[in-house]
Amino acid sequence: MDLLTFLDFLGISVFAMSGALIAARRETDIIGFILLGTVTGIGGGTIRDLLLDLSPVFWVREPVYLQICMLTSILTYFIAHYISTYRRVLVWADAMGLAVFTVVGTQIALNAGSSAEVAILMGMMTATFGGIIRDVLSGNESLILKKEIYVTATFIGACTYVLLIEFYVPEVIATWGVISLTFAIRAVAIIYDLRLPGYKWINNEEK
Amino acid sequence: MDLLTFLDFLGISVFAMSGALIAARRETDIIGFILLGTVTGIGGGTIRDLLLDLSPVFWVREPVYLQICMLTSILTYFIAHYISTYRRVLVWADAMGLAVFTVVGTQIALNAGSSAEVAILMGMMTATFGGIIRDVLSGNESLILKKEIYVTATFIGACTYVLLIEFYVPEVIATWGVISLTFAIRAVAIIYDLRLPGYKWINNEEK
Amino acid sequence: MDLLTFLDFLGISVFAMSGALIAARRETDIIGFILLGTVTGIGGGTIRDLLLDLSPVFWVREPVYLQICMLTSILTYFIAHYISTYRRVLVWADAMGLAVFTVVGTQIALNAGSSAEVAILMGMMTATFGGIIRDVLSGNESLILKKEIYVTATFIGACTYVLLIEFYVPEVIATWGVISLTFAIRAVAIIYDLRLPGYKWINNEEK
Repeated sequence: MDLLTFLDFLGISVFAMSGALIAARRETDIIGFILLGTVTGIGGGTIRDLLLDLSPVFWVREPVYLQICMLTSILTYFIAHYISTYRRVLVWADAMGLAVFTVVGTQIALNAGSSAEVAILMGMMTATFGGIIRDVLSGNESLILKKEIYVTATFIGACTYVLLIEFYVPEVIATWGVISLTFAIRAVAIIYDLRLPGYKWINNEEK
Repeated sequence: MDLLTFLDFLGISVFAMSGALIAARRETDIIGFILLGTVTGIGGGTIRDLLLDLSPVFWVREPVYLQICMLTSILTYFIAHYISTYRRVLVWADAMGLAVFTVVGTQIALNAGSSAEVAILMGMMTATFGGIIRDVLSGNESLILKKEIYVTATFIGACTYVLLIEFYVPEVIATWGVISLTFAIRAVAIIYDLRLPGYKWINNEEK
Repeated sequence: MDLLTFLDFLGISVFAMSGALIAARRETDIIGFILLGTVTGIGGGTIRDLLLDLSPVFWVREPVYLQICMLTSILTYFIAHYISTYRRVLVWADAMGLAVFTVVGTQIALNAGSSAEVAILMGMMTATFGGIIRDVLSGNESLILKKEIYVTATFIGACTYVLLIEFYVPEVIATWGVISLTFAIRAVAIIYDLRLPGYKWINNEEK
């Protein structure tokens, strides 16, 4: 197993865990953990594959992804109270998953012959739509509406990757460079609590 | 029309009714009934067909399913106040639909060549995702987060079905056996208000 | 560029703006504008293409739609405070988009060989599901549950279009006739605040 595959597995596992932790907080039974964990883990890549018509979707072709999500969710059922004490670890693992999925998603779209805009959007969706589905299903505020630099990091990463490939930078360099870049942007945002300027709503009239 | 087709039609009709009843409670007009009823009735099978790349989805191929959903929704508009007095009837019809859809979904996935894990997930999704979409659209708490034995019954049913087929049990026996089993699990859960142990969240730190 | 293409572009642009305005109200950063605007603009047509198996989806084939959504969203970031003063303009542009998308969606489904029921549902979904996804992602009450004549206008429009084509009315007449009809229904509903009778929920028993 090469490093990229390992990071891919790690990323999906971390995302599944983030879904299962929501189930823990809502005190569901173990099946709730499995369903919410699995949907969060595979959601982003599933939507990407449906939109690009890469069929059937990746986890139907390679059930190992499904197994990772299920095992992680079950594991989380037993260790969720430990994990919740180490939230910082999770935030960092999530940043790693975010970086890997951005590159993997953009790469898959480009290999499928997508245009630059489509590939960028696919990179962003692969990395963030699992979390968005998790938030919708659990009734949490969607991460789209959060002001952290999160979706933004995937946007910058995906744009950079497309640019590098456009300028004939070798794929292996582009891959590791952009994973590092995306992770670094997210890391700086976490450490310094950075955010882009949010729009300031001026209430001209009552809606 | 054989018995399985009849139960399939009954199941989709009951699910459509459960969606239309949410529309009744929110006091929408009749188009709201039709849209919410239809999406609830066909939602689970639609997602299954998209993920397995069985295209086009089943109700595009066989519009009778769409007609059943629309007619049920319109009917519900006129009789919703009667139905609401007989909630118990609906709960039992829903249990029947749940059991049938679990088997139908698992079966379709296996016939499409899916692995065991995928087939189990497809059985669960076919049976529950219509209701999940209904809850998301209407802003109700998702049934994923409920503590009833509901998703769990579909999980046990789908696993059992895959096992039986694996051990060369004839399809007709597996079908009726697992429909009975899934219905029985759900029935016991309804009567005795059984539930699996929920995770107990211990608030180590304020999130 | 013919008039229909122009209206199609106008419609998608208006829908994208309605998504971006939600981002403005929630005070997200510019990436939140782009994501919510784009998903709202292309959501309805995307679901239509997935369900009809017209793959890949339209904006993967023709990225100009994606560019329109992104540019509109970015523009909205800078002019949202002006727009909010002119809400009436937006309501009318939205009605125009609704009318165009109803006809485009129904037309595409019929051309793909769909039955009448499926084509009607596709017309309705093309016109309304972008807005429904927007509402789900932003936690607003879904437009399915609203009592305005909105989904209803698309229903009448799509039914009329299917009927006209059935009776061999030339496509160009059907197209412009139904766009006008749908727009007129919506316009009358806006001006006179018309609505269909909503279901009256009688609380027989506590749920």
